[in-house]
Amino acid sequence: MAKLGFLGLGIMGAPMARNLLTAGHSLHVWNRTADRSAPLAAAGAAVCGGPGEVCAAADITFVMLSDPVAVRAVHLGPGGACSGLGGGKGLVDMSTIDPATSREMAAAVRATGARYLEAPVSGSKKPAEDGTLVILAAGDRDLYDEAGAYLDLMGKLRVFLGEVGQGARMKLVVNMVMGGMMTAFGEGLALADRSGLDPSVLLDVLAAGALANPMFAGKGPAICADRFAPAFPLKHMQKDLRLALVLGDELGLGLPTAAAANAAFIRARDAGLADLDFSAVCRILRGERPGGNDPGGKGPAGN
Amino acid sequence: MAKLGFLGLGIMGAPMARNLLTAGHSLHVWNRTADRSAPLAAAGAAVCGGPGEVCAAADITFVMLSDPVAVRAVHLGPGGACSGLGGGKGLVDMSTIDPATSREMAAAVRATGARYLEAPVSGSKKPAEDGTLVILAAGDRDLYDEAGAYLDLMGKLRVFLGEVGQGARMKLVVNMVMGGMMTAFGEGLALADRSGLDPSVLLDVLAAGALANPMFAGKGPAICADRFAPAFPLKHMQKDLRLALVLGDELGLGLPTAAAANAAFIRARDAGLADLDFSAVCRILRGERPGGNDPGGKGPAGN
Amino acid sequence: MAKLGFLGLGIMGAPMARNLLTAGHSLHVWNRTADRSAPLAAAGAAVCGGPGEVCAAADITFVMLSDPVAVRAVHLGPGGACSGLGGGKGLVDMSTIDPATSREMAAAVRATGARYLEAPVSGSKKPAEDGTLVILAAGDRDLYDEAGAYLDLMGKLRVFLGEVGQGARMKLVVNMVMGGMMTAFGEGLALADRSGLDPSVLLDVLAAGALANPMFAGKGPAICADRFAPAFPLKHMQKDLRLALVLGDELGLGLPTAAAANAAFIRARDAGLADLDFSAVCRILRGERPGGNDPGGKGPAGN
Amino acid sequence: MAKLGFLGLGIMGAPMARNLLTAGHSLHVWNRTADRSAPLAAAGAAVCGGPGEVCAAADITFVMLSDPVAVRAVHLGPGGACSGLGGGKGLVDMSTIDPATSREMAAAVRATGARYLEAPVSGSKKPAEDGTLVILAAGDRDLYDEAGAYLDLMGKLRVFLGEVGQGARMKLVVNMVMGGMMTAFGEGLALADRSGLDPSVLLDVLAAGALANPMFAGKGPAICADRFAPAFPLKHMQKDLRLALVLGDELGLGLPTAAAANAAFIRARDAGLADLDFSAVCRILRGERPGGNDPGGKGPAGN
Repeated sequence: MAKLGFLGLGIMGAPMARNLLTAGHSLHVWNRTADRSAPLAAAGAAVCGGPGEVCAAADITFVMLSDPVAVRAVHLGPGGACSGLGGGKGLVDMSTIDPATSREMAAAVRATGARYLEAPVSGSKKPAEDGTLVILAAGDRDLYDEAGAYLDLMGKLRVFLGEVGQGARMKLVVNMVMGGMMTAFGEGLALADRSGLDPSVLLDVLAAGALANPMFAGKGPAICADRFAPAFPLKHMQKDLRLALVLGDELGLGLPTAAAANAAFIRARDAGLADLDFSAVCRILRGERPGGNDPGGKGPAGN
Repeated sequence: MAKLGFLGLGIMGAPMARNLLTAGHSLHVWNRTADRSAPLAAAGAAVCGGPGEVCAAADITFVMLSDPVAVRAVHLGPGGACSGLGGGKGLVDMSTIDPATSREMAAAVRATGARYLEAPVSGSKKPAEDGTLVILAAGDRDLYDEAGAYLDLMGKLRVFLGEVGQGARMKLVVNMVMGGMMTAFGEGLALADRSGLDPSVLLDVLAAGALANPMFAGKGPAICADRFAPAFPLKHMQKDLRLALVLGDELGLGLPTAAAANAAFIRARDAGLADLDFSAVCRILRGERPGGNDPGGKGPAGN
Repeated sequence: MAKLGFLGLGIMGAPMARNLLTAGHSLHVWNRTADRSAPLAAAGAAVCGGPGEVCAAADITFVMLSDPVAVRAVHLGPGGACSGLGGGKGLVDMSTIDPATSREMAAAVRATGARYLEAPVSGSKKPAEDGTLVILAAGDRDLYDEAGAYLDLMGKLRVFLGEVGQGARMKLVVNMVMGGMMTAFGEGLALADRSGLDPSVLLDVLAAGALANPMFAGKGPAICADRFAPAFPLKHMQKDLRLALVLGDELGLGLPTAAAANAAFIRARDAGLADLDFSAVCRILRGERPGGNDPGGKGPAGN
Repeated sequence: MAKLGFLGLGIMGAPMARNLLTAGHSLHVWNRTADRSAPLAAAGAAVCGGPGEVCAAADITFVMLSDPVAVRAVHLGPGGACSGLGGGKGLVDMSTIDPATSREMAAAVRATGARYLEAPVSGSKKPAEDGTLVILAAGDRDLYDEAGAYLDLMGKLRVFLGEVGQGARMKLVVNMVMGGMMTAFGEGLALADRSGLDPSVLLDVLAAGALANPMFAGKGPAICADRFAPAFPLKHMQKDLRLALVLGDELGLGLPTAAAANAAFIRARDAGLADLDFSAVCRILRGERPGGNDPGGKGPAGN
């Protein structure tokens, strides 16, 4: 059995690490707040005092942190991951970070003699627990091949996309499609409601046809009930739409419906919905109607 | 077994009628071009000389025609459906028509003493053959209840939506969501391609996640191969988007992403793609790049 | 001096009629509510009991009514304009009506042997008083030539655009440009304000450059003061945008920024601003910020 | 008379410098390619060997360079402007640069003891020659007051906008309004053309009404003739729209019509129009029509 490491035991990282451990692998772990390590320790993981210790002990270390700031601190800080890396080792960073940060981390890791793979995932808590994430890998191909068996414990699909940065790009593309589908869904629910059609019947109709998908099925009832407990916060979806639009701009692609969707998400963010689930954009798409509105009414004189 | 009728034996109507016949019901049929009736006649259907004869012979007559013009001619013309209707009978029109035409047909049918149901469907040829259409019914509730068992031979889900016109509206809502999902998909494929990511890998990634749906799975490979054999012609999707936007406008709902999608579909229609499948909008969303383009190049003097 | 007639003495019609009278022409007038005729009678106009009487007495009758419903009633009703028309006479309808109504009126007028000109105007109360309207004529060319001298008393520019309906179309185009300029202005004012730049300084800057125009100059200060007394009601602008989009759709032209502008105007209409000036769309474009908004804040866990 | 300096004698800088010289001020100048200095030298300017020499000789030095890269090189390079600055002097940078670069230059200039003003301009070659630019200043207020009389030789309006960066922001706002007006204009011209209305008549109509502005008047005839000689290259306008959208995003403002306009400009850039005048977006807005298009035609079977 391989000697593996895992850095970052949050909502996503903890179940991912557990899936490695359950398969029988030796696992060294570290988390910034130590109490998150306890359940894994009870299950047999070795808890280390810092990221560098994990990397020193493991052949391949997996990382799942919340954002580029955390990634930079954990990899480059004193006692950080890079301090424990070296020839023959590998670091697989599954955090969602931008291509520039990813390239910077790749350079730092490779400077130690180790190999680097970016491997952001599509999917949230439940797929992390079930080992059914989708893994979007890019970087050192031989590390991808070596780590494949372990990635398969965490995900149901993995793809290798080429140079560092391409995993991050693929994730942006997927999230852009997700944002566009959500605004199409929200506009449909709003139009049904205004037309006197029960939105929950629309859910049934959509679920029975060619448009049926887990996102509509999972989030539809909550949207109809105006509940938006955050699985993926709206402000993060909006940020991804912005980054996708900027990427399109660089590459010469106008993305007119994504741009319209982004404007709606910005509006939602500005209206105080930033920390709710991204499906809260549906609340904005419903329109206002504060009372005095009389679309068919007679206006004052004018032409 | 009930005495049923069927008017319109085209791509959709023929398999729908056959599903009624196969279940053992007596079936009178008529089609404008007579040769389309032959296969059903061979299977036991009675072929009539006109729509009125079918309605006179049947308790409930189902209708599946191509557009409002055909519907008006078949129902109101000499020897038309209304000439054979009367008290106790029912007409279930499953054609896709606008609410105004549907209300006009309802009035004409009811004037004979018969009952009327509009019941447009979501789904195309394959679901029609498999009896897995989604049926969006509105009109006379008791006719809906009486016809339920027969509708269930043609569809896997049926909903009753209230007054005549609401079935047509629900269909518009569904098609608006479909159009929006298609532009989100097309922009995603385009951004992947420009980013140097294989669009077919994007298909795999989407198929494995929360956005997976039969439309992406069914049309994705053809889109990547630039093949757009028409299942649902682009000009019809564009027309439905226009009607949905006008409906939203009447009801006070701005639909910004549907409006952006509609502009893309109009552009596609104008570029000669009107009669291809509606997924051909993806060709437009890819952008141009006729050669001389140099996004990063030095421009002439100016400020 | 010619014998002229004028039907419709509202905010626009009254000063237009007065400009004909002041130039010394014989003028027969009629208005639905009789008291509006009194000031013109005092200035020498002959007040008639109905539209038909005016047309019978005049060689050329000008019309300025509020909408298609009023136009149809005044032209076709009992004692209406058509009842007084005949060979050699002319009717110049300066109301803003849709092409279909205009064509219907043209047919009715021509059936009497008279000639017809549609001649909607661009400009509101002040230009009507000053005789500086812009007149968009279409229909019978010889009537346009004959009426030219009188049109020049009401407007500073007149153009002949061809067949009946083309005047209405040109007006739609102009109003679409106006709506688009207003949303560009409103977004600029909003972005200045959010950036901590004084919007009234933006007005000065715009007034000094290549974008300077009477609309920005005239409405800018009121917009900055959040005052929207209706000169041209928002709901009418929104209706014109809708009609322009539908026209573009028919002709194969997607109009993506007009579509985005229309969505903003619908939102404004829905938010209770329908009867304010169309510049009130700027209030909607400013965004919301209801309090709890924290764009940069930390969201809950999730990704 | 004051001792002034001028760095950058391109299309804009040369006439601006000349206006200072003509008013009788002592002027030291420098340009990267020396031959551009000759005409000014002939008119009495002292030509220096580097930016630092100019600043050493002058009390206030004005700068007009093409982009942030040139600005950084000229200010910070060996023998650069900062090498000649010091207490009591001032540097007024009239180049169009982003806020971040401007803040960096401000810090470098102030580190020498000198004062800094950013003062980008609105207007191109002709207003530069005529001394009718609009000057958007921000930075050190006392330098703005001291330099006021000289700025008035170059511009007809100057405003002080606060901290460094606010001048750049105001310019972005103005250019965003300009981009939005141009797409509204282009869509109007396209709709007129498709409607069978002569676009040059639309120019006359617009010129006579409340929307009349120098940009439509100046560029309209060239657009109708499909001529797009670059005054302000399309790629620069598109970049400014992108920056304005990103600024709005940061500040919580969705800018839906600017986003739609930006998508059109990106499309134009991608279609090979990057180096033409920004009015070339009108070519894109006209649509395609490659031949086989038949919007009203009969499609293949489908539903």
